[in-house]
Amino acid sequence: MSLDLPAADEVFAAAARIAGRATVTPVLRSRTLDAMAGCSLWLKAEHLQRSGAFKFRGSCNAVAALDPAAAARGVVTHSSGNHGAALALAAREHGIPCHVVVPEGAVGAKLANIGRHGATIWRCEATQAAREARCAQIAGQTGATVVHPFENRQVIAGQGTAALELLDQCGGLDVLVVPVGGGGLAAGSALALAAAGSRCRLLLAEPAGAADTAHALAHGAPPLAFSPDTVCDGLRTRLGAPNLELLRAAAVEVALVGDAATLAAMRLAWQVLKQTVEPSSAIALAAVLAQGPRLAGQRVGVILSGGNVDLETLAWHA
Amino acid sequence: MSLDLPAADEVFAAAARIAGRATVTPVLRSRTLDAMAGCSLWLKAEHLQRSGAFKFRGSCNAVAALDPAAAARGVVTHSSGNHGAALALAAREHGIPCHVVVPEGAVGAKLANIGRHGATIWRCEATQAAREARCAQIAGQTGATVVHPFENRQVIAGQGTAALELLDQCGGLDVLVVPVGGGGLAAGSALALAAAGSRCRLLLAEPAGAADTAHALAHGAPPLAFSPDTVCDGLRTRLGAPNLELLRAAAVEVALVGDAATLAAMRLAWQVLKQTVEPSSAIALAAVLAQGPRLAGQRVGVILSGGNVDLETLAWHA
Repeated sequence: MSLDLPAADEVFAAAARIAGRATVTPVLRSRTLDAMAGCSLWLKAEHLQRSGAFKFRGSCNAVAALDPAAAARGVVTHSSGNHGAALALAAREHGIPCHVVVPEGAVGAKLANIGRHGATIWRCEATQAAREARCAQIAGQTGATVVHPFENRQVIAGQGTAALELLDQCGGLDVLVVPVGGGGLAAGSALALAAAGSRCRLLLAEPAGAADTAHALAHGAPPLAFSPDTVCDGLRTRLGAPNLELLRAAAVEVALVGDAATLAAMRLAWQVLKQTVEPSSAIALAAVLAQGPRLAGQRVGVILSGGNVDLETLAWHA
Repeated sequence: MSLDLPAADEVFAAAARIAGRATVTPVLRSRTLDAMAGCSLWLKAEHLQRSGAFKFRGSCNAVAALDPAAAARGVVTHSSGNHGAALALAAREHGIPCHVVVPEGAVGAKLANIGRHGATIWRCEATQAAREARCAQIAGQTGATVVHPFENRQVIAGQGTAALELLDQCGGLDVLVVPVGGGGLAAGSALALAAAGSRCRLLLAEPAGAADTAHALAHGAPPLAFSPDTVCDGLRTRLGAPNLELLRAAAVEVALVGDAATLAAMRLAWQVLKQTVEPSSAIALAAVLAQGPRLAGQRVGVILSGGNVDLETLAWHA
């Protein structure tokens, strides 16, 4: 089957569609982090995006692009959290129904966000197959449009608007570092760089314990077996097929990051930036810090993708 | 002895002196917190101030106000953390020596900040008497000017600039809520409201386990015994004498807050605002949430005073 790939200029269309709905998130700077990284960091605060993650950009674009008849039947998706909450919020804003299939083991804070935005929650087993089957079943029963969390064309284009906005805010970059899981943000960012005519390199930060994107880009196809083992709960999904196609065309690099380095970078973000970012965001900062002199003196953009940490998993010993 | 009290318009002089050195911190808004509190919250992000707390305002003002001969001999203070780091940074910017007496038991992250800004650190016992004696001794030996963390006239005026800035940024408030420990921020805020001619009420958030300010305002004098027991490490000091004088003149209210409510508010700030504020900041948000219908529909300012949490005390179970 041929893939439904967005064209680069669809990122501009998405930006126009979500303007006034998505937050234009600030770009954070830090002398301390610049000194540690040996480069100029421009940190795009998508953890301050509505619903607490960049995901709102993609869902908002997908919902806004529906024709009225389809919109009235609602939307359905499967999500370990951030996409679900984002789609729920986008649907609520348009006054249409939303169903979210959530696998067992999802982070409590993210689950609460989905419910808070008024979506109907359906639980399923924590496998990709179970998620997709349940999602298809609900779509069949309700007529709701399936909005895939990272393979949907409008979602990918929508996620690209974060990079587009960052380029505009900081006046150009040498390198852009984003986390990669399903690949919506990664592929969207690649599209955005192309759309903006930027020569900025794209570096993907991927958990060493869920390194299917590195494998897929090196071997041209995803690994046969995939058993993600990482603290980055947002990056435990396989790279989508359209996303692989878009990333391959863009000639990106992948940096594999261990969980210890990710958690150290998360503490650093909390302590130095005073920003509560989640592990799936901190991994991009960790990747930058691991680059050493290769980034010396460069202008480096980092997308802090989300901040939905489950603080119940933190014990406070005061 | 008569007290060395700043006049209201010294807050304007302080604002002019620290302009371009201190960060004009952003004011954060949150629909979620507004809904929970039943009022409009304007959260002044002083945890994003240089050195990670509002304290930089006061120290910067005190250092900038020294005459050249005194400045050359340097400054000395005692501090459980944030004031020490702030004074160290202000002194480094002016190229003058800085000594900081730090009591045993201070938060590691704050201690590290003091050292990072190049001050000489002296440890002492964790009593007020030991802190002051050691500080006086160093001043005698070096000729350095003692910059008291909250009783110094320039420090009090400097801390008041946060409230002044907030009033300007949000266009007026009905109530301003700030934490109270030694009382520099509280007294400075009272001065600022007077200087601005604002009719905004001032509500002080004080730990129930360190309630000397509530006692002093109720009885006209501080309690004889004071054994602070609170998670708010920045609020374990006694209210200063000039601060009591200034607060009494301003007719403020005190809200006592238990540690459990403070920690719940801290989690909320982390989760909803994605901002890593420390317990001594979160107590002000906790005080707001405890007010219930009394603040209904009002415009409420909150100074999020600092963000220097010791993340080593947080265990991460992922």
